[in-house]
Amino acid sequence: MMVLITYDVNTITDGGKKRLRQVAKQCVNSGQRVQNSVFECLVDPTQFAQLKHRLEKIIDKETDSLRYYFLGNNWKNRVEHVGAKSVVDPEGPLII
Amino acid sequence: MMVLITYDVNTITDGGKKRLRQVAKQCVNSGQRVQNSVFECLVDPTQFAQLKHRLEKIIDKETDSLRYYFLGNNWKNRVEHVGAKSVVDPEGPLII
Repeated sequence: MMVLITYDVNTITDGGKKRLRQVAKQCVNSGQRVQNSVFECLVDPTQFAQLKHRLEKIIDKETDSLRYYFLGNNWKNRVEHVGAKSVVDPEGPLII
Repeated sequence: MMVLITYDVNTITDGGKKRLRQVAKQCVNSGQRVQNSVFECLVDPTQFAQLKHRLEKIIDKETDSLRYYFLGNNWKNRVEHVGAKSVVDPEGPLII
Protein backbone atom coordinates (compact mmCIF):
# COMPACT_ATOMS: atom_id res chain seq x y z
CA MET A 1 0.00 0.00 0.00
CA MET A 2 1.09 3.56 -0.59
CA VAL A 3 1.32 5.84 2.43
CA LEU A 4 1.94 9.52 1.91
CA ILE A 5 3.81 11.03 4.85
CA THR A 6 3.93 14.78 5.37
CA TYR A 7 6.08 16.32 8.07
CA ASP A 8 6.08 19.85 9.38
CA VAL A 9 8.90 21.09 11.57
CA ASN A 10 10.45 24.47 12.03
CA THR A 11 13.81 23.95 10.34
CA ILE A 12 15.13 27.32 11.52
CA THR A 13 16.53 25.50 14.56
CA ASP A 14 19.38 23.02 14.22
CA GLY A 15 17.31 20.46 16.14
CA GLY A 16 14.48 20.82 13.62
CA LYS A 17 16.87 20.41 10.69
CA LYS A 18 18.30 17.30 12.28
CA ARG A 19 14.83 15.81 12.88
CA LEU A 20 13.84 16.51 9.25
CA ARG A 21 17.00 14.75 8.04
CA GLN A 22 16.24 11.78 10.31
CA VAL A 23 12.59 11.58 9.19
CA ALA A 24 13.68 11.82 5.53
CA LYS A 25 16.24 9.06 6.01
CA GLN A 26 13.66 6.70 7.48
CA CYS A 27 11.08 7.49 4.77
CA VAL A 28 13.55 7.23 1.90
CA ASN A 29 14.40 3.72 3.08
CA SER A 30 10.74 2.83 2.44
CA GLY A 31 9.91 5.06 -0.51
CA GLN A 32 10.90 8.39 -1.94
CA ARG A 33 11.00 12.07 -1.16
CA VAL A 34 8.70 13.91 -3.56
CA GLN A 35 8.91 17.31 -1.90
CA ASN A 36 10.99 18.73 0.91
CA SER A 37 8.69 17.40 3.66
CA VAL A 38 6.53 15.00 1.63
CA PHE A 39 7.38 11.32 1.22
CA GLU A 40 5.64 8.52 -0.67
CA CYS A 41 6.27 5.18 0.97
CA LEU A 42 5.28 1.87 -0.59
CA VAL A 43 4.96 -0.44 2.41
CA ASP A 44 3.05 -3.42 3.68
CA PRO A 45 1.18 -3.14 7.01
CA THR A 46 4.09 -4.55 9.04
CA GLN A 47 6.63 -2.25 7.38
CA PHE A 48 4.31 0.68 7.98
CA ALA A 49 3.93 -0.15 11.67
CA GLN A 50 7.73 -0.30 12.03
CA LEU A 51 8.26 2.94 10.08
CA LYS A 52 5.58 4.74 12.11
CA HIS A 53 7.23 3.60 15.34
CA ARG A 54 10.64 4.87 14.22
CA LEU A 55 9.27 8.22 13.01
CA GLU A 56 7.36 8.85 16.22
CA LYS A 57 10.51 8.29 18.22
CA ILE A 58 12.30 10.97 16.15
CA ILE A 59 9.76 13.79 16.12
CA ASP A 60 9.08 16.30 18.88
CA LYS A 61 5.33 15.88 19.36
CA GLU A 62 5.05 19.25 21.09
CA THR A 63 6.26 21.17 18.06
CA ASP A 64 6.26 18.91 14.99
CA SER A 65 3.33 17.68 12.92
CA LEU A 66 3.32 14.32 11.16
CA ARG A 67 0.44 13.24 8.92
CA TYR A 68 -0.15 9.92 7.21
CA TYR A 69 -2.43 9.59 4.18
CA PHE A 70 -3.33 6.05 3.18
CA LEU A 71 -3.61 6.08 -0.60
CA GLY A 72 -4.18 2.32 -0.90
CA ASN A 73 -3.13 0.13 -3.79
CA ASN A 74 -4.87 2.18 -6.48
CA TRP A 75 -2.68 5.17 -5.56
CA LYS A 76 -1.44 5.98 -9.07
CA ASN A 77 -4.90 7.23 -10.00
CA ARG A 78 -4.90 9.47 -6.94
CA VAL A 79 -1.78 11.50 -7.69
CA GLU A 80 -1.15 14.36 -10.09
CA HIS A 81 2.03 16.39 -10.35
CA VAL A 82 2.63 19.86 -11.80
CA GLY A 83 5.91 21.75 -12.07
CA ALA A 84 9.45 20.89 -11.09
CA LYS A 85 10.85 17.66 -9.69
CA SER A 86 8.71 14.96 -11.26
CA VAL A 87 9.46 11.63 -9.65
CA VAL A 88 10.18 8.03 -10.53
CA ASP A 89 7.43 5.39 -10.43
CA PRO A 90 8.57 2.99 -7.65
CA GLU A 91 6.52 0.19 -9.21
CA GLY A 92 7.72 0.82 -12.78
CA PRO A 93 10.39 -1.20 -14.62
CA LEU A 94 13.95 -0.72 -13.43
CA ILE A 95 16.14 0.05 -16.45
CA ILE A 96 19.85 -0.43 -15.81
CA MET B 1 -14.29 15.22 -2.66
CA MET B 2 -11.17 15.83 -0.63
CA VAL B 3 -8.06 16.91 -2.50
CA LEU B 4 -4.78 17.14 -0.64
CA ILE B 5 -2.51 19.75 -2.14
CA THR B 6 1.18 19.84 -1.34
CA TYR B 7 3.39 22.65 -2.53
CA ASP B 8 7.16 22.89 -2.54
CA VAL B 9 8.89 26.19 -3.15
CA ASN B 10 12.13 27.61 -1.93
CA THR B 11 10.87 30.26 0.51
CA ILE B 12 14.34 31.71 1.00
CA THR B 13 13.57 34.09 -1.85
CA ASP B 14 10.94 36.83 -1.46
CA GLY B 15 9.30 35.63 -4.68
CA GLY B 16 8.96 32.12 -3.25
CA LYS B 17 7.48 33.43 0.00
CA LYS B 18 4.98 35.49 -1.97
CA ARG B 19 3.96 32.49 -4.10
CA LEU B 20 3.49 30.33 -0.98
CA ARG B 21 1.25 33.03 0.53
CA GLN B 22 -0.76 33.22 -2.69
CA VAL B 23 -1.10 29.41 -2.94
CA ALA B 24 -2.14 29.25 0.73
CA LYS B 25 -4.73 31.97 0.24
CA GLN B 26 -6.33 30.15 -2.68
CA CYS B 27 -6.33 26.79 -0.86
CA VAL B 28 -7.65 28.19 2.41
CA ASN B 29 -10.63 29.57 0.50
CA SER B 30 -11.46 25.95 -0.41
CA GLY B 31 -10.26 24.10 2.67
CA GLN B 32 -7.62 24.40 5.34
CA ARG B 33 -3.91 24.54 5.87
CA VAL B 34 -2.82 21.48 7.85
CA GLN B 35 0.93 22.03 7.56
CA ASN B 36 3.07 24.83 6.20
CA SER B 37 2.84 23.64 2.58
CA VAL B 38 0.03 21.08 2.89
CA PHE B 39 -3.62 21.94 2.33
CA GLU B 40 -6.78 19.84 2.54
CA CYS B 41 -9.43 21.15 0.19
CA LEU B 42 -13.01 19.89 0.18
CA VAL B 43 -14.20 20.69 -3.33
CA ASP B 44 -16.50 19.46 -6.06
CA PRO B 45 -15.02 18.77 -9.52
CA THR B 46 -15.87 22.24 -10.85
CA GLN B 47 -14.39 23.98 -7.81
CA PHE B 48 -11.29 21.83 -8.13
CA ALA B 49 -10.85 22.71 -11.81
CA GLN B 50 -11.10 26.41 -10.92
CA LEU B 51 -8.72 26.11 -7.97
CA LYS B 52 -6.19 24.15 -10.06
CA HIS B 53 -6.32 26.81 -12.77
CA ARG B 54 -5.68 29.60 -10.23
CA LEU B 55 -2.82 27.71 -8.53
CA GLU B 56 -1.08 26.93 -11.78
CA LYS B 57 -1.14 30.59 -12.71
CA ILE B 58 0.61 31.45 -9.41
CA ILE B 59 3.41 28.89 -9.31
CA ASP B 60 6.70 29.02 -11.16
CA LYS B 61 6.68 25.64 -12.96
CA GLU B 62 10.43 25.77 -13.49
CA THR B 63 11.21 25.81 -9.78
CA ASP B 64 8.08 24.93 -7.77
CA SER B 65 6.42 21.56 -7.29
CA LEU B 66 2.68 21.16 -6.82
CA ARG B 67 1.09 17.79 -6.14
CA TYR B 68 -2.57 16.84 -5.89
CA TYR B 69 -3.73 13.73 -4.04
CA PHE B 70 -7.35 12.76 -4.61
CA LEU B 71 -8.54 11.26 -1.33
CA GLY B 72 -12.16 10.84 -2.48
CA ASN B 73 -15.24 11.01 -0.29
CA ASN B 74 -14.07 8.39 2.20
CA TRP B 75 -11.07 10.57 3.06
CA LYS B 76 -11.52 10.56 6.85
CA ASN B 77 -10.43 6.93 6.97
CA ARG B 78 -7.34 7.79 4.98
CA VAL B 79 -5.84 10.38 7.33
CA GLU B 80 -3.94 10.03 10.59
CA HIS B 81 -2.29 12.85 12.51
CA VAL B 82 0.48 12.75 15.13
CA GLY B 83 1.99 15.65 17.05
CA ALA B 84 1.29 19.36 17.05
CA LYS B 85 -1.38 21.31 15.19
CA SER B 86 -4.28 18.95 15.00
CA VAL B 87 -6.96 20.37 12.76
CA VAL B 88 -10.68 20.97 12.62
CA ASP B 89 -12.98 18.54 10.75
CA PRO B 90 -14.39 20.64 7.87
CA GLU B 91 -17.45 18.36 7.71
CA GLY B 92 -18.05 18.30 11.46
CA PRO B 93 -20.69 20.35 13.32
CA LEU B 94 -20.03 24.06 13.58
CA ILE B 95 -20.40 25.13 17.21
CA ILE B 96 -20.85 28.88 17.68
